[in-house]
Amino acid sequence: MTQLTIVKVGGKIVEDTESLKTLIKNFSLIAGYKILVHGGGRLATLIGEKLGIKSQLIDGRRVTDEETLKVATMVYAGLVNKNIVAQLQSMNMDAIGLTGADMNLILSVKRPVTNIDYGFVGDIVEVNAPILKDLLDQNYIPVLAPITHDGEGHLLNTNADSIANEVAKAMVFDFNVRLIFCFEKRGVLIDENDDATFIPTLNFEEFEDYKQRRIIQGGMIPKLENAFDALGKGVKEVFITRISDINTGKGTFISK
Amino acid sequence: MTQLTIVKVGGKIVEDTESLKTLIKNFSLIAGYKILVHGGGRLATLIGEKLGIKSQLIDGRRVTDEETLKVATMVYAGLVNKNIVAQLQSMNMDAIGLTGADMNLILSVKRPVTNIDYGFVGDIVEVNAPILKDLLDQNYIPVLAPITHDGEGHLLNTNADSIANEVAKAMVFDFNVRLIFCFEKRGVLIDENDDATFIPTLNFEEFEDYKQRRIIQGGMIPKLENAFDALGKGVKEVFITRISDINTGKGTFISK
Repeated sequence: MTQLTIVKVGGKIVEDTESLKTLIKNFSLIAGYKILVHGGGRLATLIGEKLGIKSQLIDGRRVTDEETLKVATMVYAGLVNKNIVAQLQSMNMDAIGLTGADMNLILSVKRPVTNIDYGFVGDIVEVNAPILKDLLDQNYIPVLAPITHDGEGHLLNTNADSIANEVAKAMVFDFNVRLIFCFEKRGVLIDENDDATFIPTLNFEEFEDYKQRRIIQGGMIPKLENAFDALGKGVKEVFITRISDINTGKGTFISK
Repeated sequence: MTQLTIVKVGGKIVEDTESLKTLIKNFSLIAGYKILVHGGGRLATLIGEKLGIKSQLIDGRRVTDEETLKVATMVYAGLVNKNIVAQLQSMNMDAIGLTGADMNLILSVKRPVTNIDYGFVGDIVEVNAPILKDLLDQNYIPVLAPITHDGEGHLLNTNADSIANEVAKAMVFDFNVRLIFCFEKRGVLIDENDDATFIPTLNFEEFEDYKQRRIIQGGMIPKLENAFDALGKGVKEVFITRISDINTGKGTFISK
């Protein structure tokens, strides 16, 4: 099967002109089919604040009221997404920026209210894999913003890691899928302030051990749980690294 | 040849929930292939003001500095475009929201500085008609935001009327193209405050006469000049009306 590389990049990378350039350059060097999934949370928070909208986070997930959803839609699907697309186009990569609403690509459901009401946040129900495959077969590079829809006219703010993960799992029937989570650090670190302490390989047993010893904590836990879930569902390879190491093989390889 | 209807709607229509609903409903009733082109200038001005960015207009065209371009990209390509797409999807119309950067759909050039520096404003160089035709043939409904790119990594703010016009002209080789400009008024009015005074048909000679007598003035002049240009380049029909009359045939028909 053909290889498909899905790169997920965090907000900090795509919001900064210099790191965005590095990303585009390294992304262009990836051979074969590829999809880029991006965040943009920091910029959304900043613009929301300027507009007088306060943003609330619970367990690293934004609580999305109506005004926050508007800001998220503007920043993710507009500013960040289209800037990435224009940059890719300038490097002769035929990018197409999409939300889950476009081509009915990713259908989600508004997260049910339990103890917490996350507001207009989407939990993914279905990824339209045949449409994504069609785009890839036509040599387009889909650039996915973390906004989906419920099919009833509502946009929903959706975690970018979840999008990367669900898209990866949906594509395993047609491709050998590699999933790369790209952030500021070199990989999964034992000491989060020391890049030299990155863990080159991590399996589920080791993850559980590190988690229990609180070496791995915070936002890295759901990211890694996502990674193990993806591996369990047929994704061939999950790799956590920084943008400058997308193609060097340095970083943390996750295995079952 | 198959009929293609291109509807261009102004900001006021797509920014208001009720009029957007009416638009979506009437747009859904148009038979055959269709493309929606939208503005969003009022909302961009409003959000720009909230962000402390002042917007400047010369001859009805926004002067676009770097900050204004960011706001335009957020509002047009993000907020307005994706809301329209989600609404269309909820009516089972398989919409895809696009800027000129996506799929390299519309290439433009930054308007040269003469007496006036319009800033990051794009003059359209080329519409990628085969790609649009492919999308239409796959039963997608392209929803075009008034943002294009220069192919060198820069997004450019682009007049939505011009996009509608250039797209219409580019599609005449494959389709019988109808172009509908939709705004708040019933059509071209003799007295702009009296909807009953709409002109049912208007040819170029009449236009020149009305223009000289200053019955037609302001922003309607470039709109009509665009319309006559489109008719001269093979567009079959240009129609200026309000959203509730998209399918009734009431409004101003422009003829050569």
